[in-house]
Amino acid sequence: MSDLAALLDAAQTGERRPLARLLTAIESRSPDVRPMLPQLFAAGHGAHLVGITGPPGSGKSTLVSALIAEFRRRGRRVGVLAVDPSSPYTRGAILGDRIRMMEHAADRDVFMRSMAARGELGGLAATTWIAAAALDAAGYDPILVETVGAGQSEVEIARLAETTVVVEVPEMGDEVQAIKAGLLEVADVIAVNKGDRPGAPRAARQLRAMMSGAGGRFARKPPPIVITTATSGEGVAELADAIDAHRSTARSPTQSRERARNQVARALADLALQRAASAEGWDATLDAVASRELDPVTAAERLFDGAM
Amino acid sequence: MSDLAALLDAAQTGERRPLARLLTAIESRSPDVRPMLPQLFAAGHGAHLVGITGPPGSGKSTLVSALIAEFRRRGRRVGVLAVDPSSPYTRGAILGDRIRMMEHAADRDVFMRSMAARGELGGLAATTWIAAAALDAAGYDPILVETVGAGQSEVEIARLAETTVVVEVPEMGDEVQAIKAGLLEVADVIAVNKGDRPGAPRAARQLRAMMSGAGGRFARKPPPIVITTATSGEGVAELADAIDAHRSTARSPTQSRERARNQVARALADLALQRAASAEGWDATLDAVASRELDPVTAAERLFDGAM
Repeated sequence: MSDLAALLDAAQTGERRPLARLLTAIESRSPDVRPMLPQLFAAGHGAHLVGITGPPGSGKSTLVSALIAEFRRRGRRVGVLAVDPSSPYTRGAILGDRIRMMEHAADRDVFMRSMAARGELGGLAATTWIAAAALDAAGYDPILVETVGAGQSEVEIARLAETTVVVEVPEMGDEVQAIKAGLLEVADVIAVNKGDRPGAPRAARQLRAMMSGAGGRFARKPPPIVITTATSGEGVAELADAIDAHRSTARSPTQSRERARNQVARALADLALQRAASAEGWDATLDAVASRELDPVTAAERLFDGAM
Repeated sequence: MSDLAALLDAAQTGERRPLARLLTAIESRSPDVRPMLPQLFAAGHGAHLVGITGPPGSGKSTLVSALIAEFRRRGRRVGVLAVDPSSPYTRGAILGDRIRMMEHAADRDVFMRSMAARGELGGLAATTWIAAAALDAAGYDPILVETVGAGQSEVEIARLAETTVVVEVPEMGDEVQAIKAGLLEVADVIAVNKGDRPGAPRAARQLRAMMSGAGGRFARKPPPIVITTATSGEGVAELADAIDAHRSTARSPTQSRERARNQVARALADLALQRAASAEGWDATLDAVASRELDPVTAAERLFDGAM
């Protein structure tokens, strides 16, 4: 890790091991990473950061694998960060599900990495975008960030991505429908996957009606909807086109600024906790909150104004 | 909102409307709420804060409804916060799913409220625990916090709860299994719901083996596993017993402190963003991050050390 520039140069020629070590350091929140950040960000090539999310069972991993193949055909070097929920139990299941991606493991111009949520609140989003910056500096473009699940962390990661693809499937249970609906708001592109199922065109029409009508709940233009069949590759080129087409929209001044705001907000939260935890009054303050003598908001204010 | 004490007194006698208005103020993050917090927390009766989570389709809402009935039979006044993902689209579906809870709507000793995620990162968890403090001050105990989905916000809410019940079902798809596995780590009590399905006893045995063996991945005692059938009420009394039994464990000094730490961390994150956003260099800093002249971590440090 001593020479970041050499590491990044090596990565650009397809040498993945030093880059993998850097990502391990980022993921484990090593103190070595902090001093590298200005250089890491400055070395970025401006890769397109694409979030891919959707409800369980929508076939996201297979679709990501198909997208890797498509972008490779277009001569792009592809970075993939697969974000896993935090659990020792999930490893097997999720890696199993991601076996399809392994067809690209031997391709030196594809870099895949599984990121696990660890430690602090929001830590996953923080480490994910630093990892994305490292892949950008190493010359990968696009960088696909795949998330499993449908919670706050997905929405947060989507906010840090430039283009968010939400993967839907033609039919699912009611509660799952509700959850996937929650994701529509963050969608820049929608993929209706498992497009060979009979309900796919109807699902696409319903989504289109939902997104464009509904009393103008969207201030923005409804996102394009692409029907894909990840297993056969059908529709995947159109999806890649839709992703590429969104790149310039994503770089409008308004959207760049909104993304910057979210990145800084996340970094501020991390920093505030770090400093408070090493401040003098920390232990006594936690004791007071634990024994209900002090409410947490007042406690935070005292820590903030006293010792930081 | 002028007289919090009168509002809380009224709420204790079953007058729900003023309390509902207070919760609206909390949910919308009204500036009126901040000055009330010390009094609100001080007025708490020490209610048992119980998080109830699990994967989509596990029948959580029906189980919460059955638990309300059970705790009412035990003479308890029950508060319920149902946490919804942030979306205008989800309203219909989730309210539909929660119709079963409405059988308790006429009971003055049951207070139910749907909380929507809004605004800032992590805002949902912050408003949820302040809302729980309000229900505590109003004399409800236990307070059940039900979350839909399986993401970071659920884990975060679980960290703020004293006792977390994870609802599982006998069989589900592979990817859903993986996600529910991610929840097991936060479980203090596990309910295997839809217990009338043939696979239920087997699922409970598998979970028990997973939680107690597995090379001691748990530092703590494996949580109790209760088989429930929410629709018939079977097993619900046992589940309520398991929840009650966990109350004293949850109040050990170690666990109280850990919960306090999470509450303060959340409050610090909120405060850091609030102050940075009103600091002088905010706009210029965001511009620099948006144009990639400055990395977000360095930006956060400058804001923190400059103007706050």
